Amino acid sequence: MTNFTYELLGNSLIAGESVPGNEQTLTAWNPATNEAIMPTYSLVSVEQVSLATGAAEEAFDSFRALEPQAHADFLEQIATNIDDVGEVIVERAIQETGLSQGRLQGELKRTTNQFRLFASVVRDGNHLGVRIDPAIPEREPAPRVDIRQRKIPLGPVAVFGASNFPLAFSTGGGDTASALAAGCPVVFKAHNAHPGTSELVGQAISLAVKHTNLHPGVFSLLYGPGNAVGQSLVADPAITAVGFTGSRSGGQALIKTAAERTIPIPVYAEMSSINPVYIFPGALQKNTRDLAEGYVQSVTGSSGQLCTQPGIVFVPNSQTGTNFAETTAELISNEAGQTMLTQGIYESWVSKAKVLSDQHGVQAVGAGRDGDGKNAPAPAVFEASIQSFIDNPVLHEEIFGAASLILRYDSVEELLQASRSLEGQLTATLQLSETDYETSATLLPILEQKAGRLLVNGWPTGVEVGHAMVHGGPYPASSDSRTTSVGTLAIDRFLRPVAYQNMPPQLLPQPVQSGNPWSLARLVDGKIKKAGEQ
Amino acid sequence: MTNFTYELLGNSLIAGESVPGNEQTLTAWNPATNEAIMPTYSLVSVEQVSLATGAAEEAFDSFRALEPQAHADFLEQIATNIDDVGEVIVERAIQETGLSQGRLQGELKRTTNQFRLFASVVRDGNHLGVRIDPAIPEREPAPRVDIRQRKIPLGPVAVFGASNFPLAFSTGGGDTASALAAGCPVVFKAHNAHPGTSELVGQAISLAVKHTNLHPGVFSLLYGPGNAVGQSLVADPAITAVGFTGSRSGGQALIKTAAERTIPIPVYAEMSSINPVYIFPGALQKNTRDLAEGYVQSVTGSSGQLCTQPGIVFVPNSQTGTNFAETTAELISNEAGQTMLTQGIYESWVSKAKVLSDQHGVQAVGAGRDGDGKNAPAPAVFEASIQSFIDNPVLHEEIFGAASLILRYDSVEELLQASRSLEGQLTATLQLSETDYETSATLLPILEQKAGRLLVNGWPTGVEVGHAMVHGGPYPASSDSRTTSVGTLAIDRFLRPVAYQNMPPQLLPQPVQSGNPWSLARLVDGKIKKAGEQ
Repeated sequence: MTNFTYELLGNSLIAGESVPGNEQTLTAWNPATNEAIMPTYSLVSVEQVSLATGAAEEAFDSFRALEPQAHADFLEQIATNIDDVGEVIVERAIQETGLSQGRLQGELKRTTNQFRLFASVVRDGNHLGVRIDPAIPEREPAPRVDIRQRKIPLGPVAVFGASNFPLAFSTGGGDTASALAAGCPVVFKAHNAHPGTSELVGQAISLAVKHTNLHPGVFSLLYGPGNAVGQSLVADPAITAVGFTGSRSGGQALIKTAAERTIPIPVYAEMSSINPVYIFPGALQKNTRDLAEGYVQSVTGSSGQLCTQPGIVFVPNSQTGTNFAETTAELISNEAGQTMLTQGIYESWVSKAKVLSDQHGVQAVGAGRDGDGKNAPAPAVFEASIQSFIDNPVLHEEIFGAASLILRYDSVEELLQASRSLEGQLTATLQLSETDYETSATLLPILEQKAGRLLVNGWPTGVEVGHAMVHGGPYPASSDSRTTSVGTLAIDRFLRPVAYQNMPPQLLPQPVQSGNPWSLARLVDGKIKKAGEQ
Repeated sequence: MTNFTYELLGNSLIAGESVPGNEQTLTAWNPATNEAIMPTYSLVSVEQVSLATGAAEEAFDSFRALEPQAHADFLEQIATNIDDVGEVIVERAIQETGLSQGRLQGELKRTTNQFRLFASVVRDGNHLGVRIDPAIPEREPAPRVDIRQRKIPLGPVAVFGASNFPLAFSTGGGDTASALAAGCPVVFKAHNAHPGTSELVGQAISLAVKHTNLHPGVFSLLYGPGNAVGQSLVADPAITAVGFTGSRSGGQALIKTAAERTIPIPVYAEMSSINPVYIFPGALQKNTRDLAEGYVQSVTGSSGQLCTQPGIVFVPNSQTGTNFAETTAELISNEAGQTMLTQGIYESWVSKAKVLSDQHGVQAVGAGRDGDGKNAPAPAVFEASIQSFIDNPVLHEEIFGAASLILRYDSVEELLQASRSLEGQLTATLQLSETDYETSATLLPILEQKAGRLLVNGWPTGVEVGHAMVHGGPYPASSDSRTTSVGTLAIDRFLRPVAYQNMPPQLLPQPVQSGNPWSLARLVDGKIKKAGEQ
C-alpha cells in the first residue's frame, strides 16, 4: 500500500488513507535553530473530523469482538513496526523537539515495551473484570438467578498528543495504547510541534491495522489548526472518551466541552503538578552531595520539561540544609541550558521564571548558563521560606521547564502545614534515612491524599510502565484521580461493566461462559478463581 | 446516649448529635390519605451543612485507617441495628410512602443484607486492588524499582436519598453502604418525602458508629429545604464524591455544580431509563399468557415507581402479538391503582401519561381502575407503531409510574433500528425461546452498547445485590457508565489508586506489605496471587 512508505506525506492519516486537509498548512520548527523542517502539513477542517470519527464508529463492533490472541498480536505488531523504523523516528524527533538522542531512544523503547506489556494484559484478560454469581435455585424467599459481568470497551476514543513526550505520550503513547488495548478505536489529534514524528508513528500503527486485517477505522491521525479541530473532536457524538496530556487550561477547555455534550463523556486529562520533594535531616546528613546531584539532574533533565519534574523541595533550615543549597548552586552553575521543545514553551518559561523570581521572599540560589542552540535558557534554582509558600499561590504554580524552588523548614509541623496547602500532585518524594522514618510517617497520610505516587529515596522523573504504577492524582494533577495514564491500570479507563442475567449459554459472550474458553481469572461468588480452578 | 431512642426527634443528626435546623420546617405526608404525619422536622440552613461536612472531614483519617475486621464489624453492626428496629421502620415507611408492607419488608432485608455483603468484601479486600511489581535490580539498561499499588478512599461522600426506595436507596441504601465500605464518611441528605424513615435508619447507623467507637463524623443525616442545602453540600470543599438516585433534572443540576467547583468531583447519578423489553415470536408462541402476566406485574408493582420498570415492550405484529396485547388489556383491567409515593409524583404521572396518550399514533390498549386511597391512579398500557417510536422523542421519555407502551414490530431490522435510537438504559430484556436465539443474537451487540444489564426470560424489576450486578448504564441511565450503584462493584466508585515506590517496609501500608498481613489476593507482576501464594 503506497501510503505507508515511511516517507512524510504531510497529510492526515484517516482510516488508513493519506487525506489532505482543507485548512491552512504548517511546518515543524527545529527549536535548536528556529528553522522550518519540511514537509508542509495540510490541516483538516472541522468538517473532516467526522471522516475519522465515523470510520472509528464503523470499526468499533469488529474491533471489540477480537479474541485475545488476535488483539494482542495487533498491539505487538504496532511495537514491531515502530521498532523497525525506530532510527528514522528518533532522528526526526531530535529535529522537531530538541531532545537528545539518548532520551528519545529510551522513550522509543518505553513506547514499544508499553504495547508489548499491554498485549500481555490482553492475553491474560484480568482487565475484563469477569464476575460470576451462579444461580441459587433453592434460595429463600426467592431463588437467585445467574448473573455474570464483564467489562466492554466504551467506544471510539479521542487522544491528544503531548509536546514533551513525542513518542511515549503522543501518537503511539500511553493513551493510544491503553485505548487500543481496551478495544476502543482511536482518533489521534497530533501535537503540531512534532508532526513528522507523529506521522511516522501513525504510519507504523496504520500498517499494523492493515497487516492484522482490522477495520481501517481502528486508527486515524489528524493534523488540525489551533483548538477548533480538537474541540470538535471532543464534541463529536461518535467519541466516547478523551485522553489528554498537557496544560491545565488546555485540559480544562476539553473537560468543559465534554461536560456540555448532550451525552457527556469522561476526559482523562493529565495537567499540572509541582511534585514536592521532602528532604529529611537524616538523609541530608548522609548524602548532601548525592542529593544535590540527583536534584539538579532531575530538575534539568530534558530541559525540565517533564510532568514529574520536582518544582519544589523542602530542605531543613540547618547547616546541612545550607550546604545542600550551596552544593546545588555549585552544580547548577555547570549546567548549560538545553533546547526547549518550542519557542513558545521557551518564552513561557522565561516569563514564568521571571514572575517567580519577582515574588516577595523569593531569592536566587543559583543558575546555569544559556545553552548553545536557540531556546535553551539557563536552568535556575530559587529559594523561599516555607511561610511564603503557604501564603502565596504563585509559588504553587507549575513552571514547565528547568526551574525549581527550595523551601527551608524548621519543623515537621511546618511541613505538615505546607503539605496541607498543596494542590493535587502526580508525585511526592521523601528523601529519608532510617532516623527519619518516624517523623516522615506523620506526613504520609497527608501525601496519600495529595498525590498519586509516593516515592522514597529516588527522584520523581522517570515513570516506570508496569502494573503497579500510578501516574495521576487529585485535581489538577489529573482530571480524574480514580485513574492512571501510565501503566496497565490505564486500560480500565476505557471500559465499562455489563451484566448478563439468566442468559442462555448459547448467547453468553466468551469471557463469561461457564467453560471459560479464554482461561480468565474470575470472581466467582465473590471469591477469586484462577483459570482452570472451578 | 439519649439521642438514640428510636423515637423521632424531628432534627438532623450531625456527627451523632440531634441538631435542630435553622430554617423552616416540614412534616411527612401520608400519600394514601393526604394527611400530615408527625413530628415536624426542622430543616438545616446552608450554613449548618459545614457542621456535617467538617465532622466528616475530621473523621476521615481515623475511619480510613480501620483494619478490615473492625471496618466489617461496623458495617455488620449497622445491619444488626436496622434489623433490630425493622418493624418500626417498616411501619413508618408504609405511612410515609404508601408502599406495601410486603414490599418494604423485602426492601429492609435487602438493605441489611447489603451491609453484610459489603462487610464480606471489606474482609476479603479484593476492592483494594493491590498490585505489586517487585524490584528487578539486574534489569538492563536500568534496574526496576519496587512499586506497589493499593486503592484508598476518596474522602467524605454526599449521598442523596431516592423517594422510591425509602430503605435500599435512601439513608442506609446502596450509596451509603458502598461509601462506608470504601472507607468514606457519609453526609446523607434525606429525601423529604420520608423523613421519619430516614431518621430511624439514621439513628441505627449513628448508634453503630458509637458502639464501634468510630469518630462520630463518619455519618450525618441532614434535612434541608428545597435544593439549596443539596447544592451547597455538593459544592462543599470537604465533599469528594456524590451518590444520587432520582430524576434526570435533579441529577444534572448536581453534576453541573460538581463540575463548576474549584476542584471538580465525580457525581454518580442514577437518573432515567425506560428499560426496553423485546418479546420474540418463539417465546410469545409458547407463553402468551405468562408473558402478559409477568409484564402487567412488572409494570404495576410498587405502582410502577421502579427505575427498572419496563416502559416499552416490543411485540411482534402478528396474531400472537395481538393476543398478547388483548391479554394484557384483560389483565390490567383487573388492576387497581396503588398509592404513589407523593401527591407531586402522582400529579406528574397523570400529566405525563396524558402527554403520551395525546401523541400521534398512540392508542390505549387497556387500563385498570383508580385505587381506593388517594394518589392511586389506574395503571395504563398504550400501543404505538415502532416507526412512531423512532420518530418521536416523547415516546422515549420515562414516565415514573404504572404506564407502559407496547410497540409492534414486523421485522428484526425494525428492532435493530429502534434499538439504535434508544438512549442509554439500565436494562434491556429479551423474552426468548430457543428458536429466537439466532435472531436475538444480532441485537445483543447493540444492547450491550445501550444498557448496563441484559436479561433473558425474566423482568427487569427486582435488582439482585451481588458481586456481578450492574445497575447503571450509558447516559442518561447513569451519569457514569463505568460504574454501578448496586452490587459490590459500587464500592469502587469511592476509591482511587496510590502507588508506593521504593518505600521501606517500615513505612508501607499493610495491604501492600510483603508479608501480606491482611491475606489479600494481589496482582504480583501482572499475575493474580491468592492469599498465601508466593
